[in-house]
Amino acid sequence: MQTVFNVRTSSAGRHEFTDAVVRFVRDSGVREGLLTLFVQHTSCSLLVQENADPDVRRDPQEFFVRLVPSSEDPSMLWLTHTTEGSDDMPAHIKAALTAVSLSIPVTDGRPALGT
Amino acid sequence: MQTVFNVRTSSAGRHEFTDAVVRFVRDSGVREGLLTLFVQHTSCSLLVQENADPDVRRDPQEFFVRLVPSSEDPSMLWLTHTTEGSDDMPAHIKAALTAVSLSIPVTDGRPALGT
Amino acid sequence: MQTVFNVRTSSAGRHEFTDAVVRFVRDSGVREGLLTLFVQHTSCSLLVQENADPDVRRDPQEFFVRLVPSSEDPSMLWLTHTTEGSDDMPAHIKAALTAVSLSIPVTDGRPALGT
Repeated sequence: MQTVFNVRTSSAGRHEFTDAVVRFVRDSGVREGLLTLFVQHTSCSLLVQENADPDVRRDPQEFFVRLVPSSEDPSMLWLTHTTEGSDDMPAHIKAALTAVSLSIPVTDGRPALGT
Repeated sequence: MQTVFNVRTSSAGRHEFTDAVVRFVRDSGVREGLLTLFVQHTSCSLLVQENADPDVRRDPQEFFVRLVPSSEDPSMLWLTHTTEGSDDMPAHIKAALTAVSLSIPVTDGRPALGT
Repeated sequence: MQTVFNVRTSSAGRHEFTDAVVRFVRDSGVREGLLTLFVQHTSCSLLVQENADPDVRRDPQEFFVRLVPSSEDPSMLWLTHTTEGSDDMPAHIKAALTAVSLSIPVTDGRPALGT
């Protein structure tokens, strides 16, 4: 069983869609199985993170911006592919550093994400 | 078929549990299929590595500590989420950089890990 | 259904094998399902990337060489496992930073890679 989750974004950053995924699994009626998520954008990735504290979401985002800054940053002047904007190639690289697919066990009708 | 592997750790670092996984696959009776591993901790990740030389295990660990040092390191003073200890957020970031799920083909009743 | 893709390489770098994967999926007759790729080399990883511009392939490669340089680079002198050559451990570390398995939905008889 497959579906497409459309996540609308107005800016770079983290976009939570866990609720939609949990609902899809529940509505599928599957009690035990495997849920696989895959992002179809090559400048986007999947992240499992606890969500209790907003800082927990902000800090990793900031880390990745520091590790792979905009192509306007002096440390990134070696980039050759800049025709699609200063954030395009850094976004591709960040995607390569993180996950484009994620497989999560379904247990008792829910993604077994832990707490 | 699902199971839970409990890996007890007394410190940060690499914790080998391949044997338990190989045993689970063998006992399942599956000859050809797909094994998916998923870690339920958001400060933990999965790594496939050859194990011949202990240095092979130590060096990547050291690389990640250097790339994402403790929040007490001068390079990490920008971190905002430090209430759970100086290693908590770096552990989350390292998890985002590595794999929380891993899907390995099962061939001839064993995970086809290569050599 | 399983197969092995042999990708011959004469040097480090990106090696495209999407066509062989698309052909395998088509020949399998599966219209809707899940394709899982797994690399059996611990110094190799899988990457989904658009391919329009050759720079798009070169830049991430260059980023990873800068992030994890050869063990001869002054910044990597802390490496202990160097007996298998100056590129061996950096290759292992790069593999840990990227994906060794990748699960891609199959839709309408093709890997749903996006555009």
